[in-house]
Amino acid sequence: MYSEAAMSEGIEAVAEGGLTSARGFVAGAVRARIRPDWDKLDVALLYSEAPCAVAGVYTQCNVVAAPVVITRKHLADGAAQAVIANSGCANAATGEQGTRDAVEMAQLAAAKLGLDPHAVVIASTGVIGTFLPMERMRHGIEVVELSAPGGLAFAQGIMTTDTRPKQSAVRFGEYTLGGACKGAGMIHPNMATMLAFLTTDAPVAATFLSRALKEAVGVSFNMIDVDSDTSTNDMVVVLANGQAGGEEIGEGHPVESVFASALTHMCTDLAKAIVADAEGGTKVIETTVVGAASVEDARLAAREVVRSLAVKTAVYGHDPNWGRVLAAVGNSGCRMEEAKTGLWLVDVEGRELCLLKDGSPQPMEEGQAKPWFEAREVRFRVELGLGEHTATAWGSDLTEEYVRLNSLYTT
Amino acid sequence: MYSEAAMSEGIEAVAEGGLTSARGFVAGAVRARIRPDWDKLDVALLYSEAPCAVAGVYTQCNVVAAPVVITRKHLADGAAQAVIANSGCANAATGEQGTRDAVEMAQLAAAKLGLDPHAVVIASTGVIGTFLPMERMRHGIEVVELSAPGGLAFAQGIMTTDTRPKQSAVRFGEYTLGGACKGAGMIHPNMATMLAFLTTDAPVAATFLSRALKEAVGVSFNMIDVDSDTSTNDMVVVLANGQAGGEEIGEGHPVESVFASALTHMCTDLAKAIVADAEGGTKVIETTVVGAASVEDARLAAREVVRSLAVKTAVYGHDPNWGRVLAAVGNSGCRMEEAKTGLWLVDVEGRELCLLKDGSPQPMEEGQAKPWFEAREVRFRVELGLGEHTATAWGSDLTEEYVRLNSLYTT
Repeated sequence: MYSEAAMSEGIEAVAEGGLTSARGFVAGAVRARIRPDWDKLDVALLYSEAPCAVAGVYTQCNVVAAPVVITRKHLADGAAQAVIANSGCANAATGEQGTRDAVEMAQLAAAKLGLDPHAVVIASTGVIGTFLPMERMRHGIEVVELSAPGGLAFAQGIMTTDTRPKQSAVRFGEYTLGGACKGAGMIHPNMATMLAFLTTDAPVAATFLSRALKEAVGVSFNMIDVDSDTSTNDMVVVLANGQAGGEEIGEGHPVESVFASALTHMCTDLAKAIVADAEGGTKVIETTVVGAASVEDARLAAREVVRSLAVKTAVYGHDPNWGRVLAAVGNSGCRMEEAKTGLWLVDVEGRELCLLKDGSPQPMEEGQAKPWFEAREVRFRVELGLGEHTATAWGSDLTEEYVRLNSLYTT
Repeated sequence: MYSEAAMSEGIEAVAEGGLTSARGFVAGAVRARIRPDWDKLDVALLYSEAPCAVAGVYTQCNVVAAPVVITRKHLADGAAQAVIANSGCANAATGEQGTRDAVEMAQLAAAKLGLDPHAVVIASTGVIGTFLPMERMRHGIEVVELSAPGGLAFAQGIMTTDTRPKQSAVRFGEYTLGGACKGAGMIHPNMATMLAFLTTDAPVAATFLSRALKEAVGVSFNMIDVDSDTSTNDMVVVLANGQAGGEEIGEGHPVESVFASALTHMCTDLAKAIVADAEGGTKVIETTVVGAASVEDARLAAREVVRSLAVKTAVYGHDPNWGRVLAAVGNSGCRMEEAKTGLWLVDVEGRELCLLKDGSPQPMEEGQAKPWFEAREVRFRVELGLGEHTATAWGSDLTEEYVRLNSLYTT
């Protein structure tokens, strides 16, 4: 799962690892009947035995769910010690009642754990515009049990339309970094109905943690697309409890760059797991843009290709209609000169097929491109010929099953 | 078809009217075998007996098809007299060969009609990245016949995945305004694979014509969405040949505002016809935003609601998941304050159902909103409570059939 580049830095995957792989973290989840399908875990709790440095990145939607608003306040001091999360109800577009409910969620978790409510991260995901069933929430928080193997239950407890829990962990030197996330639809650059929690036993300075998280999210969760819809509830939060000991990691620390690299690898791994589990998805579309005049241009173009419904449906149908990729680049707003633009298909072994070079389509036999569209992962490389900047984005294809799932979500 | 507002201004629909309803215009189309389905009309020609004042609005995609590039040059002088168009091949992403082919299309039409090539508008629509079959094009332009009833054939000749030709005409005072358009997929605000041609026998000054067209397109073709993909080939062109006689219409002319109004009604009518014929579409979603701080805010919000896949699939599935509408407004980038935001469903008779008021969901019986989602046209009204500006956008729903059609387009 982890790239060769990661392994060369001494970053190693932890088999079956997750949120509680790092020392001093315990977690659990219960069926509190907040989801309409009552046999699913839907209230999840994560706890660190020691106070943590914490950093968060939140939805950019102008409609912000109550749990996000309250969490931002709680994390303003850079410290936290627990996460309470639920699926089945987003507690978004719920007015003052929603705010009161989110505050109470934090209070209930804090009372159970003997913490100040400000030490609690709150997260909700599910249907927008309905109130949390607080009686069930109170009971759920009361009965949830925490344990060292409970990371998997936590990952299951935050699932909505996900078909599988998504978790991962890596070790580098003395330290462990774990994570879990959810998200399968309404996933778009700039963070969509997506929750990700990361834990580490490394002693990390809060300011460095915040910067490292923003950079990691910028090349991972912000570069994936399922259906271009950003949600009201998204957050990525990392908690560092320092239980592995040693000197605090910050700028200039020998482990600084390895930590940042491990965080980026983990975020990328989890982000790709979301795309691979996209609602109705059958394939992953990877687009790498090279030769852009700026990083922002490269990101715009890469994201627009994996966002385009015309590209998504062509990939789904094994239709080598690559002109749609070029049109997406043209629509992205990135700087480009058609006469300098090139487009290649790339397979998993790195072989390439040139479709367009210097703005002209390349001669090709009938049907030559089609097998490249039949792969489980379809990879495009776009050359802009204007500079040195690159970016990669990942998207799902668009299928009849996506439409079916999304036309029947609340019913 | 035309609104009561239009009729009150003395604007009347012409039954079965189209491009050749205005005096002095003739048109026709032939099967030139440029489309893979060879039984369809695919080369279309429109001719005015007299030189015309002309104005155009073009794709904002950075990959611009050769016919658009050449047409912009030809119309720089504000004059034209004919349109040559084809379906089946977009002549986009075709490099220098594509430019030569577009120039030759204009030369062939000009030679046939005894015009200067600069008097010819060129338009192509279809698959991107393939060359025009110029032998067939030459033959097609040679044999196409022009006639007064030929407006319908022209409208058919520019169809791609459209299921029906789209044309319209209105009369106001002495003048007639006709139009035809195509577009069913890759339709997005800012002009997508969409061609529209408008003709009038009114004597209109080129500068006024250009301003009036931009304003009309801004509230019509730029406010519709099928699948958020802008194409390389879009254009809206209006030709005014003055054959109805009378004084030139420009600023201060008594007919100025009626002409602008007729142009807006016609563009809106044609734009809505595109949405109603959307690939795989079963419904039209209309969203009106009121109380916005600016027109741009109102347009952003209205367009994002009709663009959102979550909204499109909910409407398709009769799923009253209105939180997705609110999330789309939040994602649009428009200024908003959640506590001032309201959301209503509106039916064709103007009845309303309040879903959200001042940021709080309104009490409602189980299933009360569902019938409103079952209508052929689902209408939302969004109140932002921040100002006096409004905008309306129209979109299609997203269906399994859209996915099927688009995953098999070239094959």
